[in-house]
Amino acid sequence: MSKYSIGIDIGGTNTKIGIVSDKGKIIEKRSIATWDFPAPHLFKEELRRIIIDMTQKNKIKTPGIEGIGIGAPNANTHTCSIESPPNLPWKDGINLKEGLDDIAPVSVTNDANAAAIGEKLFGCATSLTDFIVVTLGTGIGGGIFCDSKLFHGKYGFAGEIGHIVVQQGGRKCNCGRKGCIEKYCSAGGIVETALEIIEKNGENSVLKNYDFNTITSKIIAEAAYKGDSVAIKTFDITAKYLASFSNDLLNIFSLEAIIFTGGVSQCGDMLFKPLEKYFKEEMLDIYKNKNIKLLKSSLEQQDAAIIGAASLVR
Amino acid sequence: MSKYSIGIDIGGTNTKIGIVSDKGKIIEKRSIATWDFPAPHLFKEELRRIIIDMTQKNKIKTPGIEGIGIGAPNANTHTCSIESPPNLPWKDGINLKEGLDDIAPVSVTNDANAAAIGEKLFGCATSLTDFIVVTLGTGIGGGIFCDSKLFHGKYGFAGEIGHIVVQQGGRKCNCGRKGCIEKYCSAGGIVETALEIIEKNGENSVLKNYDFNTITSKIIAEAAYKGDSVAIKTFDITAKYLASFSNDLLNIFSLEAIIFTGGVSQCGDMLFKPLEKYFKEEMLDIYKNKNIKLLKSSLEQQDAAIIGAASLVR
Repeated sequence: MSKYSIGIDIGGTNTKIGIVSDKGKIIEKRSIATWDFPAPHLFKEELRRIIIDMTQKNKIKTPGIEGIGIGAPNANTHTCSIESPPNLPWKDGINLKEGLDDIAPVSVTNDANAAAIGEKLFGCATSLTDFIVVTLGTGIGGGIFCDSKLFHGKYGFAGEIGHIVVQQGGRKCNCGRKGCIEKYCSAGGIVETALEIIEKNGENSVLKNYDFNTITSKIIAEAAYKGDSVAIKTFDITAKYLASFSNDLLNIFSLEAIIFTGGVSQCGDMLFKPLEKYFKEEMLDIYKNKNIKLLKSSLEQQDAAIIGAASLVR
Repeated sequence: MSKYSIGIDIGGTNTKIGIVSDKGKIIEKRSIATWDFPAPHLFKEELRRIIIDMTQKNKIKTPGIEGIGIGAPNANTHTCSIESPPNLPWKDGINLKEGLDDIAPVSVTNDANAAAIGEKLFGCATSLTDFIVVTLGTGIGGGIFCDSKLFHGKYGFAGEIGHIVVQQGGRKCNCGRKGCIEKYCSAGGIVETALEIIEKNGENSVLKNYDFNTITSKIIAEAAYKGDSVAIKTFDITAKYLASFSNDLLNIFSLEAIIFTGGVSQCGDMLFKPLEKYFKEEMLDIYKNKNIKLLKSSLEQQDAAIIGAASLVR
């Protein structure tokens, strides 16, 4: 008989809730807009309602749920809470155990760690021992596997790679630093790059027809695929930053692969083709014959974090 | 009875050779200019001559030498050789085993790893489990300890942190990339910063009296201590880069401490005071109550790598 657990991926835009089998298969998945629930207790009530509704609909008795695993930015594994998250509504934090652990035991980890666990168990990292999963979404995070073990560091916060400075004195980040990679290659970073190009060059771009407050990285990707020069240039610049950053990670960790997941990784060849090109151009000689891989998550859409979070409870 | 081994630290400027006791004490130390020996066999003959001379002088029979441990940039532990080193004379590499291993068994590692081992066994990291030793010399390297174990990565090259880009499109590095931290905070990087300031501002500086081809980071440090404004500004800029880079390392690894060693770390307060200040200013909130330390090597001068290399053989 299959066993099931709940995997939850809390993101800066959407929160996704799935019922996941012990084989890593998502039975059902739902999504809510994270910012629709500015009060922590209302967010948890909605999670609770969805979990109970999904388990009933799929005829799984809640005692049949092994546990609830949650991946979230700024998650503290020890306290099962999220602490001062720059990209989430709950500035004072939120405890994810209280109000949910009567359904099943609750486990919490960093969203990028959850994605890395998902890739290691069921995705494109099953045969890898040394890799980083880079989540490209509202923010940027990293889940680091070294010698087949998830790497936490002394204080458990390892992998805050979104806050590596790639441009001294660059764009101001929510974390307080300037020029973080998150400000250039996250969804919002891509939009900012596009708006900068539009402002400077005044070129003919379909992007000019949009309300700049509602433009998204997805809209820019669609314009790029239709040949819009501003959109193409935007992805070229993004790829250049990401390639340089990927070489930084390679030089630090001596990795086999970097795996990209999250919304921005869905932009496809427009991002990955120049990324591959620039990555190889900048690679240190010692790695040129090593076939270091840049991979897209092999799990559907951004499901790695849901599946990985669900695996936390085992 | 004490046991002895030979520790050798091969650097881009000097190579240091020491007889080291099993308590980590240097009995005698000598230094040669690395670039005086462009032919690999002449370099090894000189090492051989010095080792034999030092052991005879100190009345240690060569069978009493446990081994020869060598730390060097671009070292390959498996082959006991240095491979395509950008900052050393032997572009085609050099095998360090042949011609030395009849004296005693030879072990080779990255120079920064050797320094990290030295700090962990006998220096300021004896009580630390998670730290990085950053070597600031002709180049910049990193020796990474995670959970009390030296971190090598999949291909054994982990810690090539000198080649992290901190300034997109910045100064051209020997490695082929642009804007590497090595180009800003190594000995040569500091000189380049000073010359840039002199050229732009044309201020009254004692540094103008020097032949620009022979100016060194040590000369700049001495000028700074005498109040030379260009020299002081040079160290302020260097400290800013190094502080930003230190926060990058902290955010990636969730470390207890970063330990600086090598020639540039000898510049003292002129570097470390602004470094501490900028490091705290840019630190992520999650670390502000954690007392993350920036330390200078507690081992004499640049002896960490000699002592660490000597420990390799045990």
